[in-house]
Amino acid sequence: MLRIILSGCHGKMGQALQRLIAVKEGLTVVAGVDKQPELPSDFPVYTFLSEVKEAADVVIDFSHFSAVERLLTDCKAKNLPVVVATTGLDEHLKNCLQEASEVIPVFYSANMSLGINVLIKALQAVTPILEEDFDIEMIEKHHNQKKDAPSGTALLLADSINAVCQEKKSYVYDRTPKDEARATSELGISVVRGGTIPGEHIVIYAGEDEILEFKHTALSRNIFAKGALQAAVFLAKQPAGQYQMADLVNANNLE
Amino acid sequence: MLRIILSGCHGKMGQALQRLIAVKEGLTVVAGVDKQPELPSDFPVYTFLSEVKEAADVVIDFSHFSAVERLLTDCKAKNLPVVVATTGLDEHLKNCLQEASEVIPVFYSANMSLGINVLIKALQAVTPILEEDFDIEMIEKHHNQKKDAPSGTALLLADSINAVCQEKKSYVYDRTPKDEARATSELGISVVRGGTIPGEHIVIYAGEDEILEFKHTALSRNIFAKGALQAAVFLAKQPAGQYQMADLVNANNLE
Amino acid sequence: MLRIILSGCHGKMGQALQRLIAVKEGLTVVAGVDKQPELPSDFPVYTFLSEVKEAADVVIDFSHFSAVERLLTDCKAKNLPVVVATTGLDEHLKNCLQEASEVIPVFYSANMSLGINVLIKALQAVTPILEEDFDIEMIEKHHNQKKDAPSGTALLLADSINAVCQEKKSYVYDRTPKDEARATSELGISVVRGGTIPGEHIVIYAGEDEILEFKHTALSRNIFAKGALQAAVFLAKQPAGQYQMADLVNANNLE
Amino acid sequence: MLRIILSGCHGKMGQALQRLIAVKEGLTVVAGVDKQPELPSDFPVYTFLSEVKEAADVVIDFSHFSAVERLLTDCKAKNLPVVVATTGLDEHLKNCLQEASEVIPVFYSANMSLGINVLIKALQAVTPILEEDFDIEMIEKHHNQKKDAPSGTALLLADSINAVCQEKKSYVYDRTPKDEARATSELGISVVRGGTIPGEHIVIYAGEDEILEFKHTALSRNIFAKGALQAAVFLAKQPAGQYQMADLVNANNLE
Repeated sequence: MLRIILSGCHGKMGQALQRLIAVKEGLTVVAGVDKQPELPSDFPVYTFLSEVKEAADVVIDFSHFSAVERLLTDCKAKNLPVVVATTGLDEHLKNCLQEASEVIPVFYSANMSLGINVLIKALQAVTPILEEDFDIEMIEKHHNQKKDAPSGTALLLADSINAVCQEKKSYVYDRTPKDEARATSELGISVVRGGTIPGEHIVIYAGEDEILEFKHTALSRNIFAKGALQAAVFLAKQPAGQYQMADLVNANNLE
Repeated sequence: MLRIILSGCHGKMGQALQRLIAVKEGLTVVAGVDKQPELPSDFPVYTFLSEVKEAADVVIDFSHFSAVERLLTDCKAKNLPVVVATTGLDEHLKNCLQEASEVIPVFYSANMSLGINVLIKALQAVTPILEEDFDIEMIEKHHNQKKDAPSGTALLLADSINAVCQEKKSYVYDRTPKDEARATSELGISVVRGGTIPGEHIVIYAGEDEILEFKHTALSRNIFAKGALQAAVFLAKQPAGQYQMADLVNANNLE
Repeated sequence: MLRIILSGCHGKMGQALQRLIAVKEGLTVVAGVDKQPELPSDFPVYTFLSEVKEAADVVIDFSHFSAVERLLTDCKAKNLPVVVATTGLDEHLKNCLQEASEVIPVFYSANMSLGINVLIKALQAVTPILEEDFDIEMIEKHHNQKKDAPSGTALLLADSINAVCQEKKSYVYDRTPKDEARATSELGISVVRGGTIPGEHIVIYAGEDEILEFKHTALSRNIFAKGALQAAVFLAKQPAGQYQMADLVNANNLE
Repeated sequence: MLRIILSGCHGKMGQALQRLIAVKEGLTVVAGVDKQPELPSDFPVYTFLSEVKEAADVVIDFSHFSAVERLLTDCKAKNLPVVVATTGLDEHLKNCLQEASEVIPVFYSANMSLGINVLIKALQAVTPILEEDFDIEMIEKHHNQKKDAPSGTALLLADSINAVCQEKKSYVYDRTPKDEARATSELGISVVRGGTIPGEHIVIYAGEDEILEFKHTALSRNIFAKGALQAAVFLAKQPAGQYQMADLVNANNLE
């Protein structure tokens, strides 16, 4: 039985995690951490991890980036592996992850869904072959309330492509101002916003008379909760160090 | 037998037209007009329409916008219906079309393919119903040598949508500079360029938990030649006036 | 304030309706009807409509086809307009709808979502123009638990296309047994099943060098609840008679 | 300069190859082989390879399966590497390829386009990770004159997926006869035929709340000629043995 502490347990993703764990064998939530510990819950909830009395195997964090530094300190003190699934981490926090990983197992990925990380694996397998003769373009679609553009995941995909390109691509967000043919060094990223689209990312390799397209569609945010859970099961068995979804995907370490 | 004069007969589209006419019953090219009349041809070719001696029923023009004004003058003088399929006409030339149409039947559309014009019909049928609750977005894809963006056809589609909207949409080409949720008054137009993609236009209506998409894919430029031919067959039977693809589509006036 | 009685109020769709009504101005549920009236609820729930004491303006039914005949009888007795959103009605029940509509306003559509019915409007606008030169094909995708194939909505779309075709199409579900070119009289319907795909319907018109595609994507079952609510608002103002989503779509009668 | 002998030089694919070679540096056609050697040509054409007098580095064959056995015999006699791009080879002919490859370099792939073979590489990279939790489905689209269904390439893709699956999938072409939920052991293959669609193959991995799609679009048959040319450049440097597109793709051996 894997004993989980849920950081950010009352948030949307924390609740999604609870629903998933409820229907999975071998997983249980022993305690929660939340800035509103007073809300009703099936397990004891604390303001800080340092206060938790229950024994546990792993922490999953879907709280807020402002809570991450304190959480990492507490994880180190308790010698608990931690899956940080909170988004919006800046350089300082990424350094904190790095430092913590010298003491405990730390898991962090810019996108926690299995599908996006499998997509990255596929893109990195084909890009070196196609790079020279195919133009690479990307389309991402999200709901009309999303403020940032392009999505962090689109940039993650573009960076993952660029990481394996011999000639680095520059990202282009708008082709309307200039009146010239496309340069091969470009990687166009188009942004679509509308309705309640949960998230779609398409990578297009367009060559002479043939096109390859790789597409990921998210149907709900549950996929991030599910990925975090797969990460937790994996992480609980690892020694101290920094881990990410690519480690699950490449080693096929799925529970 | 419909007797056709081909203006711009030696160009790419002129040649595409000849190949189409060769396999169609009831159509024949009686003469050509081209700035290079000396090139070999199956029919007599002249520098100007005014020099053509052969009797004809209709002129199809795929020449160059700089040749259109003179051509219209000659069509009026010969009392010949004319399908102007040349692109890039400015306001002055559009006025010339208007003037000529008082004397002869004149056919002009910003996009000569049947499919795009059928798409416009569909968009105009559904937009008034969806306008209030659905966000409208557009993606257009073309080959990597195309210089202008967005495509003229994308603008034609957007304008056709706007023409039937109660609240007019403003076109948005880049969402990356601003950090705010989408306004319902926006109509995003995304541009993809790559390889030899002949042309793709997608209109997306994204609402609450449902999405409608309308897509046109061009597989070759032959569709513009085919549309021009359908226009010529239609135009040869009409009185003086201005006509466009919508007249074929709406009246279902296809040969 | 529109006073609604919810038949099948404890089912999945009944609950979806309650969530929608809770966030809409001017709508309220005054009573429910359900085979399990004892379950907790924010409003009084009865086994049969005939028992309901509360005054109401309209009934929305998402129960079970076996409950529809009795419900219609009770609606007639109470002189209440009824939106029948239950699926799986047979010929006998459709006759019951017809009979009831002579006394009260009755609303019934094979698919209650606005999007699918707007799609039908678009298909019927373009099919007569494309029928002769374009091959028509359809793809539908649903989750891996769906038993029937093709979906009722795919057949609804195909029938709606056929209704406006001069030459009727025959539906083809499998092209692998025969080794011959496609006949123009065919309308291929392909079925994809996988994961938790909520529902996707694509209609393809493939011609010479151009393709038109019309696609509807459902992101959740809420769209059927939403459509039923739009139908109820519309129906409450109508005289006795039979109504369907096409009446909302064509007259643009959306609240 | 790579000196090429073109077998089947007067056929559609032979002509496509000539156009490609004409615009490439470092490649030349020194002779042709065709059942109609009398047709006009820029190079000497013979009925059989054994008659060719010109020195050459490699043979590319786009003739007809009935000509392949004799061609292989002649290639062995002349010690010439051969790219067999002809389709429809039966078991006997595949054995002939095998035998010839003990003496000379022989290149053969069921699909000669780079894109399809890159797609296979991607599918084989992701399938082992997704196999357990995602349903796999395929859609292939071709023009309305294609007689066989599913396409050979669809079967090639399905077999390539199955080759890396732990639990083998059975192919399902029609879900309409049975009324049951999808079994995970199924791999559905849907066939769409219409207009002049040159060829499209889509592989769908549908999981819980997320979908991955991999799509290849062919815009013309030139891609097979181009792939054959890439194979010829590669093959001319190899020792005797059997080679296929995977060797180009995996070793990134593209000219």
